[in-house]
Order: sequence, then C-alpha cells, then structure tokens
Amino acid sequence: MVAALILRRVVLASCCAVGIVASLYASALAQTDPLPSWNDGPVKKSISDFVVRVATQGGPDFVSAQERIAVFDNDGTLWTEQPYYFQLAFALDRIKAMAPQHPEWKTVDPFKSVIAGDRAAMAKFTTKDLEKIVFATHTGMTTGEFSALVKDWLAKAHDPRWHRPFTDLVYQPMLEVMQYLRANGYKTYIVTGGGQEFVRAYADQTYGIPPEQIIGSALDTDFTYNDAGKAILMRPPKLLLNNNFSGKPEDIYLFIGQHPQAAFGNSTGDREMLEYTQAGGKGALMMLVLHDDPAREYAYGPAEGLPASKVGTFTQALYDEAQSRGWNVISMKKDWKRIFSFEK
Amino acid sequence: MVAALILRRVVLASCCAVGIVASLYASALAQTDPLPSWNDGPVKKSISDFVVRVATQGGPDFVSAQERIAVFDNDGTLWTEQPYYFQLAFALDRIKAMAPQHPEWKTVDPFKSVIAGDRAAMAKFTTKDLEKIVFATHTGMTTGEFSALVKDWLAKAHDPRWHRPFTDLVYQPMLEVMQYLRANGYKTYIVTGGGQEFVRAYADQTYGIPPEQIIGSALDTDFTYNDAGKAILMRPPKLLLNNNFSGKPEDIYLFIGQHPQAAFGNSTGDREMLEYTQAGGKGALMMLVLHDDPAREYAYGPAEGLPASKVGTFTQALYDEAQSRGWNVISMKKDWKRIFSFEK
Repeated sequence: MVAALILRRVVLASCCAVGIVASLYASALAQTDPLPSWNDGPVKKSISDFVVRVATQGGPDFVSAQERIAVFDNDGTLWTEQPYYFQLAFALDRIKAMAPQHPEWKTVDPFKSVIAGDRAAMAKFTTKDLEKIVFATHTGMTTGEFSALVKDWLAKAHDPRWHRPFTDLVYQPMLEVMQYLRANGYKTYIVTGGGQEFVRAYADQTYGIPPEQIIGSALDTDFTYNDAGKAILMRPPKLLLNNNFSGKPEDIYLFIGQHPQAAFGNSTGDREMLEYTQAGGKGALMMLVLHDDPAREYAYGPAEGLPASKVGTFTQALYDEAQSRGWNVISMKKDWKRIFSFEK
Repeated sequence: MVAALILRRVVLASCCAVGIVASLYASALAQTDPLPSWNDGPVKKSISDFVVRVATQGGPDFVSAQERIAVFDNDGTLWTEQPYYFQLAFALDRIKAMAPQHPEWKTVDPFKSVIAGDRAAMAKFTTKDLEKIVFATHTGMTTGEFSALVKDWLAKAHDPRWHRPFTDLVYQPMLEVMQYLRANGYKTYIVTGGGQEFVRAYADQTYGIPPEQIIGSALDTDFTYNDAGKAILMRPPKLLLNNNFSGKPEDIYLFIGQHPQAAFGNSTGDREMLEYTQAGGKGALMMLVLHDDPAREYAYGPAEGLPASKVGTFTQALYDEAQSRGWNVISMKKDWKRIFSFEK
C-alpha cells in the first residue's frame, strides 16, 4: 500500500515533469511561426536568436523592454525603390498636375522635360534639378496641406510594373520582422533618406509605425498664423536634415538619444547607421537586404555580377564590410518565401 | 402571489439600478485622487475635465489613445529655474573644474569672471558670453562623455537655496499631472529651451520620460570613428535646434508630426507652443504656471505687481493672451497644496 502510494507519487511526479516538458514543447510547436514569409536558414535564425538573446534576463545582452529600439531604412528595405524612388514618382506627378498653373515651366528645365515625359533628359537630372523639383512640389504650403496631397496621391497612383498602389509594394517578410520585434517590446523606427513627412503620410496605416517614430530627411518649417489668427506651420524651400549616410546615426541620436539594438538597411546610405548600431554593443543585429530576385522584384548590387544601381546603391565595399563585421545579408531570392502579400 | 412576485421584481430591479449607481459612486469616491498636491478649484478641475473629455468615445473631443500627446516645458514648469537655469549652474561649475587645464582663461572673459566668482560681471554676460561658456563646457567630446558629466554633476551638486540635489526641485503637482495623463494613455514629452542632452541625462529617472520623448535645444553631432574604429558621435560647437518661441512648435512637428492636445509652460518662450496646441482643436488644454509664491518657491511675472524676471519671463501680454484665448493660469500659491515632495 505504502509502496503503491510511493510508486504512484513517483509516477505522478514523472508524469508531471514529463507533462510540463511535453506541454512546453507542444506549446512552442503550436505557436505560430512569427516569420512565415522567411525560408528557414541562418538568416531567419539570426533574427529569432537576437530576439531571445536580448530578452534573456541576466544574460550578457539583456536589454530592458523600455530601451528596445529597432531602426529600419525605408526605400529598398521596407518597400521597392525601383525603377526610381516612389517619392520622386509623387513629385513628377505633382509637376504635371501643377503645370497648368505654371505656364513658364513649358520652357524651363527641369520642369519642361518632366511635362514632356522626356525620359532621356530626366535620366540626366542633376541633384540641383531634383532639388528644384522637390522644392516646387513639397514647399510653399502648410504641413497639413502637404500631408493631404501625399495621402491623396497614394490613394490613386499606381506603380509602373505591377499597376498596384505603391503601398502594396511593401515587403511582407519585413512587415513580419517589425511585428515580431514589436511583440517583443521593441519600438520600431523608420530612419529614411526619404522625406519624413512623405513617409509619415502612410507609415501608420501601412507599417503600424506612428508619426513620432519616423525619422527622415526633413524640410524646415516656419511657424506663422493664417488669416484667422490660427497658428500654422509653413514649409519653406530649405532642407533642415539630410538623413543619409552620417546623417542617419546623427539623427537617431537627435530623435532617440540612444543606440538601437537592431538595424536594417540595403544600401551605402545605411552603412553608418549599422556601424552606430553595432557600436552600442549588446549583441546587436545588423542586416542588409540584397536585391537579387529579378523575377519577383529587382536585381542590383555587388553579388554575382548584378548590375550596379544609382538608386539604392549596394557596393562591393559595403558587401565586404558586412562580411568582416558580421552583418547579415538577406538574399531576397533565397531567404524570402514570399516578397509581396499579393503573391499567390 | 403574482402581485408579490411583480412587486419583488420591481423592488429587485430598483435595488439593482440603485445598487449599480451606488456602486459606481462608491467606486469613484474610493479612487485615489490622481492630483493630491493640487487644491480643489477651477484649475485642478480643468485638468480632470480635459482627461474625461478626450477619453469620451463618440464625444466631439475624443482622441484615440495612440494619438494622445502632452507637452511640457521644463525650466519653471517642471522644476525651479531661479536664481538661474540649473543648466547654467552646471556650465559654471564645469568652467571652474576645467580651469586648471585652461590657464589662459584667467585673463579672458567670460571665463575670468566665472573663475573669480564675480557676480556683478556675470550678471552682465551677453548672449555671446553665454554661448562661449556653453561651447567650452558642452562640446569637444562624445555624446556619451557629455551625458556622463551631467549625470555625475547632478549626483553631487546642490542648489543655492535649499542645498538639495537639483532634481529635488521638481514640482510635485506636475509629476502628478504627468502620471495622471500617462495613466490615461498620453505620451508625455518635454519640449524645452534647455539642452536636449542635459535634460535626457536625468528625465527618465526624475520624470519617467524616456530620452526619445525629450525635445530640446540641440547641438549638432558629427559621426566619426574612435582610434579602435568604433562609430562615435562628437559634439561640435554648433547649434542645430533653438527650441524656443517658434522653435517649439516647429520642433514638435519635426519630432512628433502631430498636434499635442495638452501643453504646459510658464513663459513667453512657450507662447507659440500653446498656440500651436490650441490650433489642433480637439478641446485642447493649455496651462501656464505663474510663480507667485516667494515663501515656498519664487515670485516673478505680471500679476499683482510681481517683479519681472529675465529668467522665465512672463509678460503682461502673455497673461492677457492667456485670458483672451481661454488658457489656464496656475497660481503656485493658490493652486498647489504642496510644491516640492520634501515639504512637510
């Protein structure tokens, strides 16, 4: 009787231990894969390893939930940037829409070429030409008016290849990474060379990132009053922040005041951001998206003889630095099971 | 029998209705007052009315939890700013500490007067003199080195009147307001004319506000590498953002990208921030702290013949604007039961 009881207790205890382990195991298996659009492999694993490492209390890389920061470049990292940045598509469409009010543009470049749709001439635009286009289309109005123009354009415009709204061309695997990190306490920031106000106009709805977590190249604003005496902010033709290259870590410090633990980019403009993230220590995760899938998206960059691109330049030097510093290069072709949510 | 049943049901129904109302009432009474350091009156009531108004789903002033933003000036609004800004006290102490390494300062103003403790000369310092002091003490080092200097100073320095750590001189009623707003879904931001990095060094511990929610006047940074090839940010002697007057709403837009619904200030430097907050509509709350309590803190400003102050100037024009625009003026003397947590 006593033996039976003891036996029973041992069996029960074993059952319990086995039960707990089995239950934990089953629970782990039952959990939905947070990155279903990623193919299994070292790149996907580096992301989940990072999340576990940083969340392990008492571990050398533990970061408190409040300090968890992840930064993402936008063009070419979160959505397509070919055949040219979508913000440029917006600006060109605006030039055409504004042309009737600017008859003088018909004879003056860069406007003349845009209105005429002269692709050969547009391909030769200088930085100064692009600045003229940006200032003509992005300034001389209130902040609210500009934001409304962008939202209206995004609701109507379509990309030239898939003929879909531009916001359809966000990368499903990156949406999953952002969601996965946020579920683990991270604040996700966009740190873009593109215009801060442009990205803010759609980022909340498309990425789930609120305006205060968008850091971008920014025009100055001028506080003034409208005719009714109400405070407004006007957009003058003056660049305040050039959020590219060194500007990225400088603005991360300006806006966030601390090192991120994870940084995602895809071009030389992201190099300093990844270096600064790594300098924060704490087992940081640095990743670069390599566009090597011409069938499903585009192919450009240093690897396997891909053509170089002026948009989203990924040099051999950056590739070499990624190797030497232990950054992960994401192959769209190999690592992404699905690129866009509209794929079958 | 049936009559008895009906009667019973009516009584039960009444009991239930009364019970629910009574229970709600008791629950409301039982709730701890979120603003115990405020005296009851219209000013305190304006805060709780605001919180209820903005949180009322379907009401005309409803704001979703994600969009709830409240901004606070720092000097004179969250902590004392007399006899001079505490950041200036830091800079003057740094000049004295650095003097042995700068023998040339003994003969050159403004440094000479600071080292000699010549208060008469220091009272006449120009903006250019102050800039020299700030650049000498705030630049030429990494961002991390500067932050460490501020933290070290705050841990050791004492104010000249109460001989307490400067961080003891935060206003208990304002800590309660910030806590109350955060408990109701608000993100609380500091928007200060003072140095962003200076305030970030203590704001998390003192106010519960993380670095990314501190907007302040900011020096530029320069991305570079240390001798070990590690990415660092140096602080050059160059102002990037002057976060005062019009700079406040402009930087709120730069950092947050939306209108706050509540703004707290205490001087002419906060005027445009309050105007911009009000322009966002949504039943916004604008408040100005009036320093009218020389016994418990300081007295300066427009009301009741208080002396004017160069530090935290509160002009009659600002007072008049507050009246005409329906902003609340907080009398420290009348509205605050307790100013500092160390009061008995």
